[in-house]
Amino acid sequence: MTAPGETTATTSAGFTPLVDTARLTGVEAESQAAHHLYEHLIGLWAPGVIEAAQDLGAFSALTLGPATAVRLAEILGTDLRATRVLMDGLHAYDVVRRSHSADGQALYTLPPELHDVFSPHGLYSLVGKISHDRKLAWNAWRNLAENVRTGARDATGGERVNQISEEDYTSLVRGINFWAPPIVRTLADALRELGWTTGESARVLDVGCGTGIYSQLLLREFPALTASGLDTERITAIASRQAQELDVADRFEVVVKDFWNDDWGTDIELALFVNIFHLQTPESARELLLKSSKSLAQGGLVAIADHIVDDDDGAGSVQNKFSRLFAASMLATGGGDAYTLHDYDQWLADSELRRVALLDTPMHRVLLARRA
Amino acid sequence: MTAPGETTATTSAGFTPLVDTARLTGVEAESQAAHHLYEHLIGLWAPGVIEAAQDLGAFSALTLGPATAVRLAEILGTDLRATRVLMDGLHAYDVVRRSHSADGQALYTLPPELHDVFSPHGLYSLVGKISHDRKLAWNAWRNLAENVRTGARDATGGERVNQISEEDYTSLVRGINFWAPPIVRTLADALRELGWTTGESARVLDVGCGTGIYSQLLLREFPALTASGLDTERITAIASRQAQELDVADRFEVVVKDFWNDDWGTDIELALFVNIFHLQTPESARELLLKSSKSLAQGGLVAIADHIVDDDDGAGSVQNKFSRLFAASMLATGGGDAYTLHDYDQWLADSELRRVALLDTPMHRVLLARRA
Repeated sequence: MTAPGETTATTSAGFTPLVDTARLTGVEAESQAAHHLYEHLIGLWAPGVIEAAQDLGAFSALTLGPATAVRLAEILGTDLRATRVLMDGLHAYDVVRRSHSADGQALYTLPPELHDVFSPHGLYSLVGKISHDRKLAWNAWRNLAENVRTGARDATGGERVNQISEEDYTSLVRGINFWAPPIVRTLADALRELGWTTGESARVLDVGCGTGIYSQLLLREFPALTASGLDTERITAIASRQAQELDVADRFEVVVKDFWNDDWGTDIELALFVNIFHLQTPESARELLLKSSKSLAQGGLVAIADHIVDDDDGAGSVQNKFSRLFAASMLATGGGDAYTLHDYDQWLADSELRRVALLDTPMHRVLLARRA
Repeated sequence: MTAPGETTATTSAGFTPLVDTARLTGVEAESQAAHHLYEHLIGLWAPGVIEAAQDLGAFSALTLGPATAVRLAEILGTDLRATRVLMDGLHAYDVVRRSHSADGQALYTLPPELHDVFSPHGLYSLVGKISHDRKLAWNAWRNLAENVRTGARDATGGERVNQISEEDYTSLVRGINFWAPPIVRTLADALRELGWTTGESARVLDVGCGTGIYSQLLLREFPALTASGLDTERITAIASRQAQELDVADRFEVVVKDFWNDDWGTDIELALFVNIFHLQTPESARELLLKSSKSLAQGGLVAIADHIVDDDDGAGSVQNKFSRLFAASMLATGGGDAYTLHDYDQWLADSELRRVALLDTPMHRVLLARRA
């Protein structure tokens, strides 16, 4: 909360303010604080309108072209007034544009960059995330208190409860591809600074590769690179298809391995872990780094892209805030923790590795390490 | 959505950015758009952590003083790790402060201006709003699509479905008192500009007064003013108690009236309607203004504080966005609509009234009118 008179304005191109805070200046502190808190509490309005529109097929209808509320209500079989209210709500969040047709009716347009985001087949589709929200996240967040009481660990103590079914997981994995472009750009720039050239013929091991989007985009940055994506059979099938889609199938192979028990080889130039470490216990995190250390080629690197809390970066950094809240998200839906840079540095030291870089991306951090 | 290269930064002291948008510059448009959309979709994280903490009694515990996660877990009977994750999540949203105790543990503090906000007895308490969220809002927003299909009107066609029980309504009414201070300040300034003096001995009729907070705070601005609060018996009992709490009981009387059928008198200097018009149909809105017009003293004013959409103000104004989304909120939970300034001007003209001012407040607009 901001104390009266104090101003800590933050900016975000994606943010929709719902309190005109300039008009709170000089108002008593409790009313100000309540306004700020209220703005947090109505956070559920945004997923509410976006997911309702997706449920009704409104975005799919709008990919065919701009439409009025009358036309949308016809297509979707919805109530006219309610359809208008929903579309105006989406417009308030800048998800659709609103102009006027020749006869003065409001005309709603889905911006082109969002067409594929709402399509199940888009590379950066959020359909899997929305589907996960519909099935799990609303109830999980609403009932978070219960998991705070119990700790949400199962009877064996070590493993986190994971409410995500295999099918939802597959869909969810594709649903977070959109994180990859800025992370890969940051990673590629760092690799170049560390001496990688365009002709680098190194081998990347993408551990727990998911759709493989991170190593696949990296292959596009370095045309002589090859990558192996390690994951379960169900997931690697998705990764293979996507490698073809991205024109890197000739340099991307999937490897179905039990990455705890099977050997990783010994010639790895880059061991890549994206959103893997937050799923680990401290013990399994240490084990992953030990296996990495053993399989690295001379001069090879470990790259970890994850929710890494850097306490030295102050409380206010976006990456720290997102990491803290992602931990709460994992507490709600099961699945892991957000570890601190101090944790990582200790695990690295235990595996005779040392950190050589820590880089910010829009919502994550990228940690690079090599043999100490 | 912001097009690539375009920057439409907005600021809000209460906002918690979870995407570091500076690091999205130059990234492909679809990934950027997906980041912005994702930030909207995770809007439910904020009510999730805040309401869980309230459910568990964490805020109540913190009003006794700062505490570590260990101490809080003891008091609340919760899991230690999960309690730490929850408190760090609250800290990410700036709801609690985080420092370090002498032995290096994180120490969580509830800022003083939030103590009463989380107390059921605070004047600007949000406990009623939180309770309403817990009971109704989560399910209503999650199932918004269904109301868009049906229009959420009952079988008689005219009345909106109102899912709010009488008890929840009472609690909710107190739960939005916090809106009053900046609105009353704006109204009082406007009245002074229109010639009201400190010694103004006018009579205010607060129609559908709820807790009476608006007319009660106005009585404190104008020491010779008197006010009558009209509402149902259950609600006026709350208003009477609160008038005593605010030391204006000698000038505030409650009037239990059927405000559709009973007479309002004829000597009203200010007919005040706060959050009343959005609950009306166009027909009942017109009727309220007709009754107002008849009961105004010579030179008397009508003041309407509500979600008024001003299309001439552009799509981007916070007040328009909030009005549009409040309409979606009413579609989700039942209860009304957000009307445009054009609607109001027409209703006023039908009652021989004319608008003399339109003023922005943090989340509402205040419209002042008098006889044409």
